[in-house]
Amino acid sequence: MNDPTNLHALMQQMGRDAVAAQRVLAVATTQQRNQALLAMATALRLHEAAVLGANARDMDAAKAAGLNAAGLDRLRLDAARLAGIARGIEDITALPDPVGTVIADWTRPNGLHFQRVRVPLGVIGIIYESRPNVTADAGALCLKSANASILRGGSDSQHSSTAIHRCLVEGLRAAGLPDACIQLVPTTDRAAVGDMLAGLAGSIDVIVPRGGKSLIARVQQEARVPVIGHLEGICHVYVDRAANLEMARSIVLNAKLRRTGVCGAAETLLVDAAAERTHLAPLVRDLLDAGCEVRGDAAARAVDSRVVAATEEDWHTEYLDAIIAVKLVDGVDGAIEHIARYGSDHTESIVTDNAGAAERFLARVDSAIVLHNASTQFADGGEFGMGAEIGISTDRFHARGPVGVEQLTSYKYVVRGSGQVRP
Amino acid sequence: MNDPTNLHALMQQMGRDAVAAQRVLAVATTQQRNQALLAMATALRLHEAAVLGANARDMDAAKAAGLNAAGLDRLRLDAARLAGIARGIEDITALPDPVGTVIADWTRPNGLHFQRVRVPLGVIGIIYESRPNVTADAGALCLKSANASILRGGSDSQHSSTAIHRCLVEGLRAAGLPDACIQLVPTTDRAAVGDMLAGLAGSIDVIVPRGGKSLIARVQQEARVPVIGHLEGICHVYVDRAANLEMARSIVLNAKLRRTGVCGAAETLLVDAAAERTHLAPLVRDLLDAGCEVRGDAAARAVDSRVVAATEEDWHTEYLDAIIAVKLVDGVDGAIEHIARYGSDHTESIVTDNAGAAERFLARVDSAIVLHNASTQFADGGEFGMGAEIGISTDRFHARGPVGVEQLTSYKYVVRGSGQVRP
Repeated sequence: MNDPTNLHALMQQMGRDAVAAQRVLAVATTQQRNQALLAMATALRLHEAAVLGANARDMDAAKAAGLNAAGLDRLRLDAARLAGIARGIEDITALPDPVGTVIADWTRPNGLHFQRVRVPLGVIGIIYESRPNVTADAGALCLKSANASILRGGSDSQHSSTAIHRCLVEGLRAAGLPDACIQLVPTTDRAAVGDMLAGLAGSIDVIVPRGGKSLIARVQQEARVPVIGHLEGICHVYVDRAANLEMARSIVLNAKLRRTGVCGAAETLLVDAAAERTHLAPLVRDLLDAGCEVRGDAAARAVDSRVVAATEEDWHTEYLDAIIAVKLVDGVDGAIEHIARYGSDHTESIVTDNAGAAERFLARVDSAIVLHNASTQFADGGEFGMGAEIGISTDRFHARGPVGVEQLTSYKYVVRGSGQVRP
Repeated sequence: MNDPTNLHALMQQMGRDAVAAQRVLAVATTQQRNQALLAMATALRLHEAAVLGANARDMDAAKAAGLNAAGLDRLRLDAARLAGIARGIEDITALPDPVGTVIADWTRPNGLHFQRVRVPLGVIGIIYESRPNVTADAGALCLKSANASILRGGSDSQHSSTAIHRCLVEGLRAAGLPDACIQLVPTTDRAAVGDMLAGLAGSIDVIVPRGGKSLIARVQQEARVPVIGHLEGICHVYVDRAANLEMARSIVLNAKLRRTGVCGAAETLLVDAAAERTHLAPLVRDLLDAGCEVRGDAAARAVDSRVVAATEEDWHTEYLDAIIAVKLVDGVDGAIEHIARYGSDHTESIVTDNAGAAERFLARVDSAIVLHNASTQFADGGEFGMGAEIGISTDRFHARGPVGVEQLTSYKYVVRGSGQVRP
């Protein structure tokens, strides 16, 4: 696959195959798509040894290449994780089918009857990194929403993804659906990503990138098709003067430390200057005592000698680690200003018993998810009751927040008349 | 403005000003935005002489440059047209305000209360051609939906657009809103379009191009921000074997000839081969007798000697003129196949009394608007009951079909809790 002409031809063919498969998928029944999903889960269980064997090859290569512990953990599959992936696919079958749902229905005075009906987006290109479970999750979510998918995983996990993809294809076949409903790019050549970002000659309707900053930068530079973006989550918790202190302590600890590697983890704690004497010290000490590094402004440093000085860079940083930046702000408006300047439009929470302050924050903070008296770690499609998701969109366009099966659809207008012509 | 460095700096400043103005707009009330709109209409009436004078300068230059009659008609304003523009803005005030609308509302078992609330898209860049009324329509629709707009009109209409834009700014001021809520690029330098397509350093959230093929091609090549696309409308009417002939004749004539220059005008007539002997001749003769050129396949040519031979190119062509391509197809599936191959995913209609054939067509034709027993000329936001629109989107992403104020919004999730942390 080192011949660039061959690779380009292969990618274009994958695009055409995806379009053809999607046309079949668009008229397949809910039952047929769910049957395929259940058969995929069965195949993953049946071929456990093959999938784990492929994963062992990836792990060996990654260790030899010196991948760090966190990276190896993301890459690693075992029987329990594989069972979780299979269960996740089964859970997707239980979600309501978005396709064909009537979103709106009205009749005009001339008797024309209008319906706005959900339809698939078409062909979705997903570009991701080392987690092999994305192969199954993304392929399954796209299938549920009657979209064809072209998956391009990370080179670290290519053996694992290939083995998982074989199980997905087995599921498609069991339901009589074309193999090309879910395709995996069979090469780790990075030129394939360029072809996908160019849209495969009009075959790809949308790209979903799931990865770090270098991937996002490449997508922003090269994409010629719509993108559902998943940028960083620089999430804030603002503790207002009217916050219940015990509630604030519980929310801050959970928002930062429940899991530090998720995009909904809090990265900055903003404390109302009017609550400096009452709230700042307990919040900062809780974090320190729980093993979190605290990088603070002068007020936070005055609380405890373990607090290190925050720099301008800290307010811009998504740590994804047990580190938090802490700052006093001038009330709810100070918090709103700070978030507008440094936030990434992902998820922010206010803790307060003052309803007016809460409503001001919820209305004026321009993020995909704004919370009152709750942890930012609820930023998750499952917690929203949407079932599985393909990520959290920080875009304003098409889909914002958790991207579940509903967000992977478009709509069309179906208009029924009795001979109406336009005057 | 011939110094490219100055132009670039100006455009970037317009972007920053738009972002700042939009933050004000996002918290302005419905009343304040409607007050601005009403004051704009008043200003347009008050400054009728100035606007028509500016338009006369554009018309003189366009005549000297040899613009054709259709182009001159698009450019021309008179007292009646200007009054229509003012009335159009007043109509927009009567539309429901989409901003703040709660789209969905639910509570999870843990007591978290979720709301999905409409919010503005942000800053909208609109790139259009010679019709000066777009300046008013687009600026007003964006303001209604609390979006800031950066308008870049055609060079032909720059004097007219500048005079209209002054009236819009007068309306903004009357309501205490920043001038930069609606900005007009003050130069006809085409480099400004490039800056807008690059997003003005993150200031522009979405581009709406309204123009011909060369503009669309440039947008597809250069845009680094999301685009709401308005491609061509190669609209089809399919007359099935079970069509009521009188209804079919009425719909075909209206779909083609009511207005030939609109994107919802039919460009191709498909007739069921099983209806060749009953339906083809009257449909073709009606069109010919009404002064429409008919380009047909062998069957259509056999009907009347005035029918000329269609070429492959005809099935791909949006005539926007009194010309139609006519072809026999093999039933509803033949029509679906033809449309999938040659259509532009805009608007298609089936005429039939067979409910099964109708449902098959409505489900399987993958266009923004599909109609049964009605004219394609209903492809218009006003006819849908949506009020004014900024165009018809042929994209599948974000907005499809008529783009009214609701389609110029995004949403955010507002989550209210009582101290919930995630287990």
